[in-house]
Amino acid sequence: MHPFDRAIALEPLGQSRFAGHTSADYQNMVGPFGGITAAVLLNAVMQHPDRLGEPTSMTVNFAGPVPDGPFEILARPVRTNRSTQHWLLEQWVQENGQPAIATTATVLTAVRRPTWSATDCPAPLLGGPGPDQAPTIITHFTPWLRQYTLVPLEGDMPSEWDGRENAESLSRFWVRKTTPRTLDFCALAAVCDIFYPRTWLRRAHQVPAGTVSMTMYFHAGAQDIAQAGDDYLLAQARGQEYRNNFSDQSGLLWRTDGLMLASTHQMLYYKQ
Amino acid sequence: MHPFDRAIALEPLGQSRFAGHTSADYQNMVGPFGGITAAVLLNAVMQHPDRLGEPTSMTVNFAGPVPDGPFEILARPVRTNRSTQHWLLEQWVQENGQPAIATTATVLTAVRRPTWSATDCPAPLLGGPGPDQAPTIITHFTPWLRQYTLVPLEGDMPSEWDGRENAESLSRFWVRKTTPRTLDFCALAAVCDIFYPRTWLRRAHQVPAGTVSMTMYFHAGAQDIAQAGDDYLLAQARGQEYRNNFSDQSGLLWRTDGLMLASTHQMLYYKQ
Repeated sequence: MHPFDRAIALEPLGQSRFAGHTSADYQNMVGPFGGITAAVLLNAVMQHPDRLGEPTSMTVNFAGPVPDGPFEILARPVRTNRSTQHWLLEQWVQENGQPAIATTATVLTAVRRPTWSATDCPAPLLGGPGPDQAPTIITHFTPWLRQYTLVPLEGDMPSEWDGRENAESLSRFWVRKTTPRTLDFCALAAVCDIFYPRTWLRRAHQVPAGTVSMTMYFHAGAQDIAQAGDDYLLAQARGQEYRNNFSDQSGLLWRTDGLMLASTHQMLYYKQ
Repeated sequence: MHPFDRAIALEPLGQSRFAGHTSADYQNMVGPFGGITAAVLLNAVMQHPDRLGEPTSMTVNFAGPVPDGPFEILARPVRTNRSTQHWLLEQWVQENGQPAIATTATVLTAVRRPTWSATDCPAPLLGGPGPDQAPTIITHFTPWLRQYTLVPLEGDMPSEWDGRENAESLSRFWVRKTTPRTLDFCALAAVCDIFYPRTWLRRAHQVPAGTVSMTMYFHAGAQDIAQAGDDYLLAQARGQEYRNNFSDQSGLLWRTDGLMLASTHQMLYYKQ
């Protein structure tokens, strides 16, 4: 079983409840990688017998710590229309022997039909050197980072934390799973959280920082996502505003042929 | 009473429940303006006796129609930490005599402290002609639009729906309430939904379109927001991807002195 599938595995308990378990493979410095939490929550929607359509937007709020061990997800379709469905999700954990909400999420699934389509954000750098022409990096800094193989293009994590401020917060890189696995909605949700805090890049100063809320817009259907196979995705992120403990950043993910698969935004807490 | 305050007025019912009523002043083509729905939901959080800190991020999901008349909001703090608090909100309406969820939302409130701060998105066009040097527009197309006075700068709504595609989806304008009122969190949340669908601008073709999910990141505290007074805000929006019934767009709102107050993102449904 692929480590990702192990990490998002759920046992249906009926009545919109699912049992899951944290995975050592996707551990971050404290608790699980936020992307894997988004993925396992989305998996509850994917497995729900009443689901209508495919994920179109999702917001995940990291409300409290997820301790190592079992957790339970409540994934309720609260409104079903003709072609759209709105979901409310809660991830419950045990904290000091008491049940507590660690994560909340909302999801929109929709039946989408072919329409006029266009992009305002064509994939940059396509036609230049591809991911196979450059050295790859597997970072062993935290367990979850080992799950991804990166080809840095620009805006890589500072090699020296010397506090010299950068004018730019733009990062671009190729990314794929280290152990090959065909892309799907859950894997795409996870990779939306691949971007490290823009404060680190701007300040060359590694203050404690973490995502508090993440939104994902899915621009492709299951077939278009599956066509990415286990190949690289082109990933780009930029910061917007850094002010009084909170900063926001936005990311884009394209297939190697330039099709945008997802756009993503997040608000992060940072100290000092 | 200012029409905005009338529209977001709530009667506390206890146990995290609040009673509200739709307002003719903020009516859209069908149902209320999405921004006023976001504002009244946020107002429930603002009025909640257990609130900790100020709004920092918010996601609103427009799940179903809000019929003219009374509605009820359930605004529950589901997780309170030392300096952050996560909220789940539901707006309940009567549909065919049955209670139904029309809107869901998540909110993060936080106690924020002064830290290193910076921006990657300085306000454009400042130093050029100010809002008082240009003709204002009050649009009478729908009731809610009359509530706002706009000074278009670029990317105004096409004057002819001739189907000639534009390469760009950028809009910039100054905006303030037509009837003066000091800015606050609820008013800022409402104005985050001021941007018309980017598909209309790109295609010069007015297909049915509407927001399905909107996220707001608040970058300023109550005092900084109040300092905007009843003056104009500089507003900018851009589209990202338009594909198979759904498109996303992102907006920024600055005070006249260039301080960013909010960034916002939304996913819209569009037909054809």
